[in-house]
Amino acid sequence: MNGAEALVRTLARAGVEVCFTNPGTSELHVVAALDRLPGLRPILGLFEGVVTGAADGYARMAGKPAATLLHLGPGLGNGLANLHNAKKAHAPIVNLVGDHATHHARFDAPLSSDVTGIAQAVSGWVRRSDSPERIGADAADAVAAAVGPPGQIATLVVPADVAWRRAPDTIPAPAPASQSAGVAPAALAACADALCSGEPTGLLVSGPALGARGLAAARAIAASSGARLFCDTFNTRLARGAGVPAISPLPYFAEPAVAALGGLRNLVLVGTQAPVAFFAYPERPSELAPDDCEMLVLVERGHDGTPALEELAAALGTEPSGAPTVEGATPELSTGPLDLGAIARSVAALLPEGAIVSDESITASATLFQQTQAAAPHDWLFLTGGAIGQGLPLATGAAVACSDRKVVSLEGDGSAMYTLQSLWTQAREQLDVTTIILANRSYAILNVELGRLGMTNPAEKARSVLDIDAPKLDWVQLAEAQGVEASRATSAEAFHDQLSSAFTQRGPRLIEALY
Amino acid sequence: MNGAEALVRTLARAGVEVCFTNPGTSELHVVAALDRLPGLRPILGLFEGVVTGAADGYARMAGKPAATLLHLGPGLGNGLANLHNAKKAHAPIVNLVGDHATHHARFDAPLSSDVTGIAQAVSGWVRRSDSPERIGADAADAVAAAVGPPGQIATLVVPADVAWRRAPDTIPAPAPASQSAGVAPAALAACADALCSGEPTGLLVSGPALGARGLAAARAIAASSGARLFCDTFNTRLARGAGVPAISPLPYFAEPAVAALGGLRNLVLVGTQAPVAFFAYPERPSELAPDDCEMLVLVERGHDGTPALEELAAALGTEPSGAPTVEGATPELSTGPLDLGAIARSVAALLPEGAIVSDESITASATLFQQTQAAAPHDWLFLTGGAIGQGLPLATGAAVACSDRKVVSLEGDGSAMYTLQSLWTQAREQLDVTTIILANRSYAILNVELGRLGMTNPAEKARSVLDIDAPKLDWVQLAEAQGVEASRATSAEAFHDQLSSAFTQRGPRLIEALY
Repeated sequence: MNGAEALVRTLARAGVEVCFTNPGTSELHVVAALDRLPGLRPILGLFEGVVTGAADGYARMAGKPAATLLHLGPGLGNGLANLHNAKKAHAPIVNLVGDHATHHARFDAPLSSDVTGIAQAVSGWVRRSDSPERIGADAADAVAAAVGPPGQIATLVVPADVAWRRAPDTIPAPAPASQSAGVAPAALAACADALCSGEPTGLLVSGPALGARGLAAARAIAASSGARLFCDTFNTRLARGAGVPAISPLPYFAEPAVAALGGLRNLVLVGTQAPVAFFAYPERPSELAPDDCEMLVLVERGHDGTPALEELAAALGTEPSGAPTVEGATPELSTGPLDLGAIARSVAALLPEGAIVSDESITASATLFQQTQAAAPHDWLFLTGGAIGQGLPLATGAAVACSDRKVVSLEGDGSAMYTLQSLWTQAREQLDVTTIILANRSYAILNVELGRLGMTNPAEKARSVLDIDAPKLDWVQLAEAQGVEASRATSAEAFHDQLSSAFTQRGPRLIEALY
Repeated sequence: MNGAEALVRTLARAGVEVCFTNPGTSELHVVAALDRLPGLRPILGLFEGVVTGAADGYARMAGKPAATLLHLGPGLGNGLANLHNAKKAHAPIVNLVGDHATHHARFDAPLSSDVTGIAQAVSGWVRRSDSPERIGADAADAVAAAVGPPGQIATLVVPADVAWRRAPDTIPAPAPASQSAGVAPAALAACADALCSGEPTGLLVSGPALGARGLAAARAIAASSGARLFCDTFNTRLARGAGVPAISPLPYFAEPAVAALGGLRNLVLVGTQAPVAFFAYPERPSELAPDDCEMLVLVERGHDGTPALEELAAALGTEPSGAPTVEGATPELSTGPLDLGAIARSVAALLPEGAIVSDESITASATLFQQTQAAAPHDWLFLTGGAIGQGLPLATGAAVACSDRKVVSLEGDGSAMYTLQSLWTQAREQLDVTTIILANRSYAILNVELGRLGMTNPAEKARSVLDIDAPKLDWVQLAEAQGVEASRATSAEAFHDQLSSAFTQRGPRLIEALY
């Protein structure tokens, strides 16, 4: 057994089932081990941003890490943006990054790079495995570090010789799962006091508590105490739709967020931090809650607040089972030229029960989110780190994790171009993903932001870096070229028909919604 | 004037003419400044790997830096692989990376990231500008650092508030150009002695000395002394073709490289380091020259060895003007099904004088390089850092730098997928680039390397990460979808006709050569 086999066997024993990869020469011993050994399914991405974003989507839905296998510093670099998003999502991922053989490192060959330095920017745990004797233990430690809680990115750098040299035959047992510390009685009491105080109080929930159980407890607490209930603007995963207790994300722009939090004297934080603006602007505050609002931490950022919310509900004498839930409703459909409202109403009407929505629709997101509130129950995955190019890879990984659920990508055309190679992996693996390209042929959010800077009429040079309409992208061709069936809709009726057809078949489909 | 305007004005005064960009909200003040001020031409890439690779191609051909404008850590991360290649090419680039406003950094908003940490992995110079009073000087320093010599990557992090706050009206003058130190007389004498010693001696040249002048001096030295003349396997830029003195790159694989250097007792190094294997392999040496071969450094790595080679030629009493050059020859064309030889012969026969070749053809490269030796004179740009996804962006930037020259991308299909968004920028800017996709539908180099590991018959799981034939990529659609005219050739005659047509028209074209 060589180091690569020890690595693969250890990961398999620790429960890792999937390895998203774009390998190179220095990873070939690991590829050979994947080939020889059962346990891990390798899935190829034609670009590393696909690989890392898929690992994020897999982790969000499977609740456990996939491995990635990446080629030295440049391969890790290509995957960095989606690792950034995964980091902010507290998604557990085990990155395996190949590197030059130990004895080769000092020669500064063309592919020599600072792998560890690059990894540190996005990883909670980084280690360079320095011998085949220890690579099994290193891999077990990496899985344990990734799982947390909270989940994080663990990067194990694997020099080629550590992979190819002989390793001992023993495979380490997985580390026992860590437990989140229970909620401290003092914190619970302080939050309960605030909620009963009669003062304006808010409850801000994020992280794993945004499943149905956590939401029921949060909604019951809000209903019984009169607290304003919010989740973060961008969340790892949110259960929603008919029969699920509703929660409102804080608005994206600082002004309406400040208004939503206006007057609060207490804010109970569950699995998140005090709310801050996404970007800073001249003469605007970064902190969104009022200056005199007291922050009460019930559960630390990234941790699962579900048990604590249930304890808090009990302390307030209310029952999660009695929390109000959203009533299902079928929206009235549009006719005529396609617009965003028509798109949103068709998605809401047709969304299959148990669907997973990967949302990277940027300026279209608010409308789509609002209109699907009463659709069939589903999970919503957000752009957690603001690094665009997340949506298509995330959908790819979510579909690998949940092969029995329909995955829907709501994608801006600008964002989709970053990691369009995802479509090829969806076709290769015949994943059940419907991609809706919201084609406004503009970096529309930047035009909005430019207006907020007072520059409402940019001249040609600014427009040339904000508009993507010349030449026009043809998303039907971009999808078909990668083996994904595709169509274009320019009317509400055509969009509805195409979406209906996509949702009643299995396998990858793309609809370019030109509006 | 705000900080962004001071930044843009300083760059323009220092001679920077182009800004390749994919901006976001934190860069909009710089976008607004580019819009208002003359001097810098912004060019949009739909992915940051396009932006940084284009800056590299521009630098290699213009001999001076372009700026890039990137969006925080994730935007820089997306550009990292091609910055790695540019670093290895000693290409001068000035990266401007936006970041959160200074007062916003401590809140860990979703896009907060370790911009400086990521930048350090690929930059020779990194600075965070901390005030609008100093941003002009910071920009002038960045340009000076980028120019070198040797050229390097200079990254200036620009917090949003430093861009939007009021700046002084004075624009710093560009730093005076640094001069390479002249060659030390002792080094010159030692190299001359070795070349006259009668011992087997080699001359290994890389960097800017691979222009026509440096090559003439090197070839004259080799002819008069009997030295074996080589350049590195992967070079920033090499002048070649009819009428240019020939030079042989060291072979890629270690075994033939060791053979080429076999028996040498002295190796004169001009602008490069002692040759090392690209990757390490079990039981194979990393260093390629014989153990008892003495290394003589005439010119340090990355520096221009042209003057030193001319001095050395003079010391040996030989004349660069008398160096033998390659005689032009027109290859005999093939007929029938398309193969690599037919592709290479058509390229050689049709290549326009003064063409710029961006080579990322990987397993096809040796044949294409060899067959074009006697083509019309041209420049050849290599994959300097081994990070694939360089070729199409590099061609894009080279075409911006040299709008009067035909640019030819020789591209593997696997490599082309990394940064295929380059085609859109080529169409938008109507750049004169012909892309030839060498479509073997495989990561062929990895199959070769797997065979070298003794694994000649990989099973399904290994093949599933090395072959990219299911689904088949349609490069005609991928190009047309982005506004680039495209065609597919499966016979030698069709390829020749399509290439002839592409070379006689201007503007972007793509040919999928299926062989």
